[in-house]
Parts: sequence; C-alpha cells; structure tokens
Amino acid sequence: MQLSELAARYRQDLYESVLPFWMKHSIDREHGGFFTCLERDGALYDDRKYMWLNGRQVWTLSKLYNTVEKRQDWIEAARGGAGFLRRHSRDAEGRCYFSLARDGRPAAYQRKPYAAVFIMLGWHEYALATGEEWARTESLGLLQKIREWIAQPALIGRPALAGAPAFLQLADIMVQISMVLEVAAVDPAPEWRSLLRELYPAAMRHRDTRHNVLLENVGPDGTRHSHLPEGRLVSPGHVVEVCWFLLHLLDAVPDAGRIEDVLAILEGAFEFGWDREGGGGLLYFVDIEGRPTLQLEASMKLWWPHTEALYALLLAYEKTRDAKWLRWLEVTDEYTYRTFPDPQYGEWFGYCDRAGKPTHTLKGNSYKGCFHVPRGLLYSLQSLERIG
Amino acid sequence: MQLSELAARYRQDLYESVLPFWMKHSIDREHGGFFTCLERDGALYDDRKYMWLNGRQVWTLSKLYNTVEKRQDWIEAARGGAGFLRRHSRDAEGRCYFSLARDGRPAAYQRKPYAAVFIMLGWHEYALATGEEWARTESLGLLQKIREWIAQPALIGRPALAGAPAFLQLADIMVQISMVLEVAAVDPAPEWRSLLRELYPAAMRHRDTRHNVLLENVGPDGTRHSHLPEGRLVSPGHVVEVCWFLLHLLDAVPDAGRIEDVLAILEGAFEFGWDREGGGGLLYFVDIEGRPTLQLEASMKLWWPHTEALYALLLAYEKTRDAKWLRWLEVTDEYTYRTFPDPQYGEWFGYCDRAGKPTHTLKGNSYKGCFHVPRGLLYSLQSLERIG
Repeated sequence: MQLSELAARYRQDLYESVLPFWMKHSIDREHGGFFTCLERDGALYDDRKYMWLNGRQVWTLSKLYNTVEKRQDWIEAARGGAGFLRRHSRDAEGRCYFSLARDGRPAAYQRKPYAAVFIMLGWHEYALATGEEWARTESLGLLQKIREWIAQPALIGRPALAGAPAFLQLADIMVQISMVLEVAAVDPAPEWRSLLRELYPAAMRHRDTRHNVLLENVGPDGTRHSHLPEGRLVSPGHVVEVCWFLLHLLDAVPDAGRIEDVLAILEGAFEFGWDREGGGGLLYFVDIEGRPTLQLEASMKLWWPHTEALYALLLAYEKTRDAKWLRWLEVTDEYTYRTFPDPQYGEWFGYCDRAGKPTHTLKGNSYKGCFHVPRGLLYSLQSLERIG
Repeated sequence: MQLSELAARYRQDLYESVLPFWMKHSIDREHGGFFTCLERDGALYDDRKYMWLNGRQVWTLSKLYNTVEKRQDWIEAARGGAGFLRRHSRDAEGRCYFSLARDGRPAAYQRKPYAAVFIMLGWHEYALATGEEWARTESLGLLQKIREWIAQPALIGRPALAGAPAFLQLADIMVQISMVLEVAAVDPAPEWRSLLRELYPAAMRHRDTRHNVLLENVGPDGTRHSHLPEGRLVSPGHVVEVCWFLLHLLDAVPDAGRIEDVLAILEGAFEFGWDREGGGGLLYFVDIEGRPTLQLEASMKLWWPHTEALYALLLAYEKTRDAKWLRWLEVTDEYTYRTFPDPQYGEWFGYCDRAGKPTHTLKGNSYKGCFHVPRGLLYSLQSLERIG
C-alpha cells in the first residue's frame, strides 16, 4: 500500500469532509457549546448539550489550533465551548452533568466520571492554546476530583454494595493515562511521570495472556471474575485504543522492554476481535470464552474502534517498521473507508450492523461527536509525517 | 387460519418447550430465587439474580398455579422465589435493588421503579395462590411506594433538574394499570376502580392522532416535546402491550365507547410499526417523524413485542369478531414462529437483527426471563378458549 496515497486521502477527509461538517452544523452561536445530535445532512434532531462531547470538541479544536494551524475559527469555536462548560457543566459540589438543555440548564447526571474527563481534557488543551489561566487551574482541579471519583464511586452515586464484584475498569485506567499524558507533556514535575509509571502495570493487570487482549474488568490485583459477563468482556476497539495510549506512555516514561508487550496485545486485539466470519471489521464486544454478552450491540460495527485501529497500526509500524502492521492497516483501511465515510454530506456514519450496513444514518448523537474521527485522522497524519 | 391449530401449537410450545426450559434451568434450589442468564442450551453464564425477572417468574408460576393447574412444582418454585425476594430484594429504606449476588447480597440499584413493580406483582399473585398474608400485605405496601416513586423520582436517585423536560412515561402508566388491575380483580374496594378510571385518560394523553400510536413520553397534560428524541419515540411493541392492558381495564371499568379508540391504536401500532421494508416483524423503536433514534437497538427485532402482538390481536378478535384482526394475526404468527422459537433446546431466542437473524443465542439475560413468552401464550390460549 502507498502511504502517500493514504496521507492524501486522510488529509482530504479531515479538512474537506469531517471538520467542515462539524464547523458548519455543531456550533451554537447563541448560547455557546456544541450540538452533536445531527442527522446525516447536519440537521439538528436534539438540541441538548452532551458534556462528554462538548469537552471533546473543545479538545479537538484546541489541539488542531495548537498543532496544525492558528485558525481563528477553530479557537473561537473552542472558546464558545470552553466558556459554556465553565458556566454550566458543574453542580454546586463540582460534579459534572451528563447533559444540559440548550441554554445550559442541567438535564441529567450519569453515575460515571467521563463527562468530567473530557471537560478536563478540553480545558487543558484550550489553556495551552490561549494561555487562559482559569482553564488550566480548573482542568487540574477536575483531574484531582476525577481520581477521587474513580477511587470512590459512591461520591458520584454508585454506592459500594456487598454483593457487587470489586471490578477495576479498563476505561478508568485509560482515561487517567490520557489525562496525565497531556499534563506531563507540558509540566516537568516528576509526580506526573511517577503516576504514569503506576498506570502502566495497572493497565497490564487487565491482560489475558491466552488471547493477548485486555479484559474490560478485573478484580483488584488482576483477579479474574470469569463467572460474570463483565469479567469475561473484551471490547477489541478499546484494547486497540489503550495500546496506542500505552505507546504514548512509553514515550513519556521510556522502558524499551515494554513496547513488545504492548505490540503483542495490539496484535492480539486484531487476531481476536476482527470479524472474519461476519464480513470484516472489529466486533464491538466479545466474550472471551465465547459465551453470551449482555450488550445488545455486541456484534455491531461502530466507527470509533476503526479510527483507533488506523492510528494504532500506523504507530506500531512507525515504532517497528515491521511490514505485518501495514498488512493489518491495509485490511482495516479498506474496510473502514468502504463502510463508514459519507461522501455525500461529509463526516462518517457511526453505527452499522454486523454486515457493515448502517443501522442509523445520523452523524452524531449523545456519544458520537467531533472527536474520534478527527483525532484518529490527525494523529495518523502526524505519524505518517514522522514515517516520512 | 385454523384457530384450533394455533391453540394446539401454542399449548405444545408453552407446556412442552417454554416452561420445561425454565423449570429445568432457572431454579436455584440452594439459595432460592431464579437464574435468568441462560445460554441456548440452558447453561448458566451469570449467576446473579435480577429483580425484574425474579418478580416476574414468581408471578408467572403463581398465575399458572392459580389459573391452569395446582401443580406442586410450580408453586414450590414460586415459593422459593417469593421468599428469596422477601429476604433480600430491598434495602433498609424499602427501595428495591436491580440485581443481587447469587446468595442475595445486593449488587446494583437502578434509578427506576420497575424491579419493585414486578416484585409487587409476583407477591400479589403468590398470595392468591397460597393465602400467605405477608405476601399480600408486602405487595400492597410496595404498590403504594411505587406510586410515590413514580410521582417523585428523586426518591430513587433521579433528582428533578431545571433543564430536564417534564416527561410522563407511558411505561409508568402501564405498570400502574397492570398492578391495579390485578388488585382490583380480587378486591371490590371502589378506590381501585376509581384509579383505573384515572389511568385510562393518563394513557390516552400519549396518543398521537396522526399515526394513531402512543408516544413513549409526553409532557404533563399531553404536551408534545417534539424537539427531543424521547418526545418523538414510539415503541410499537409497547403500544401493543398497553392496548391489551387497556382492553382489560375496560373489562374492569366498562365504557363501551372507548373500546373503538383502543382498537384504533392497536391497528395504528401495526400499520406504523410493522417493518414492511426489512422483512417483517415489529421494529423495536421508531421516531414518529422518521428522524434518528438514540437507541442503537432501534431496528432490531425482539421477542417480546411479538408475544404481546399475538395476544393483543387474539383479544381484539375475541372482542369484535372482525376478520381484519385474524389477517394481522396470521402475518404476525407466521413471522414470530419462523423467527424466535428454538425447537432444539426449547424457549425462544430473544434478539435478532432487522432481517430476523439472531444476534444472540441466549435464552435469558438481565431483561429476558420466564415472563413474556409464557404470559403471552397463556393469555392467548385463554382467549382462544373463550373464542371457542
């Protein structure tokens, strides 16, 4: 495969299809913040503001401003989002809402820390772009709170119950890695690097050595809860995403011996999660013992595992120059570009059935916004540039 | 279509396939209560006890005992479930859990009243079977609490937020009708009939007169929130289920003029929800304006809308003797029996893609248990008997 052709196609997709879609349809110029529930053609079908995606879009636009070009339209839109989140995203105790009415009045809580995670990341990147001190301070304060909420979920409405298995969640490790990596990149204080060194073995506690994948949920110290569906659950796209975060982590706190372990898991995720029987693509959820999953969407094909896969495979090739990663990349790229992008109205479809046919024609909802596609394409283009 | 052939097939399915599956695989003889996470062949893949389904199975077995035959195995299994729920299903404040560990220790809460609803129904039917006064008293106490929780969701963890639309949920009306109908059937006190008379217009507030279906969510006094996906949401199977509950309600508090309104909605649900383009069957969720849904499973075909459809169509025919209901019944029965039952291991598959192919081979999970299939078949057989 021609990497130069790939770069040209990803560049065109990012700058002529994906970003124009969000810049045209998602910005609320009246109240600030971003709409994400957009139909195929960009029409709005729900005017609420979803906090995961508002934080993520502030991050995406600020990251583009910081690393690609100082475009005023990007940073102005990010400013509208960052300020809206500052005014409306938190209750009196500092807990973040899941969704707000268009004008910022609170609409719903989620008993999870992830709205706060993406707001933290958005403010942090926005502070780097603008130098606004409030955004840096609020972001670091939120990081502190998120770590408390992960340690004590009762604080966000999930009391510890005697019969609930003590699961550690891969998502909780991953979001901590993602946040600390961004802070450590601009703050030389040694505690951030110590924290990254702790987070690596925490992620590896989720490793299943037989299939070389990461389980979504393990007990403290890696105990398996194989009698429960959550204890057997694998999200191959999630494993792939964690792998590239771990490769970034190993750039920040180098440990040469560990790269091979991460790459073995990346390969394991493709061997285990690629749907050879069902027309290709990464399955959304798989039970590691082949038993039933509780998730109805398990066999669907979603867009984001594939954006993560494209970048993870390029990064693996960049680190090793081993052609096996290009072979997986070719298969994944062919599947992804045949299945998800919408050349007619821009952006990608998000949700397909097992055969790869869209079940929904929407471009955004309460979980899909201006994030995985532009991040995956931007990071892939940066890797392609380093590969040269 | 031959109704006698239908009756023979439903009888065989209920007594030789469905009930034997649950009686063989779901009963926990050590701790009491019921397993429901059962693979295709009945193997257990999650040993937790799910409260919706434990309450429902107590109801199903007690109802069979009360209306079909005084079988000791049915009432002994119901006793094991009713006692398990009495010992373990509630916290110190009387709120019901969503799930428990196998031995009864609490595992999770849900911010919804439905676990309590099905426990209430289970205990109530069990009390009729056994005369155990505690079960009747606890059941009626729970009904009182459920009505408070529906009126004030903050009591079960859903605080009223300023930007949240004030939705009334069709499910909340339906479960109240279902509970009050069962109580009113054995208690002549006039307040139950007054309550049923109030619940009829409450359900009708959800009516969309253009498509003749019921919306899942409307504002107080029937205000439409058409700018939000919840405000446009229709679950055709749910509409069908509410219709037969309303026909039962009109048996309890007769009002001849209203039967035609209910039947118009039943017909509307089939006209609107039957998937003519996608191979038949009732779609799971449809946006009334054809806009995107937030539910990933919207275009899937689930088992329970079809059990509800079979019974609702038979009941409509029983009430009217109008052949149009038999035509819909023939189509629905053909689709249902081609798609869901598993002749090899018994019971029905629950979850299929739009084309009707199973996405999961499981027979039960945290929402599918010994309830919709046996209830639908039992009620259909009773209606067929009355039709003669």
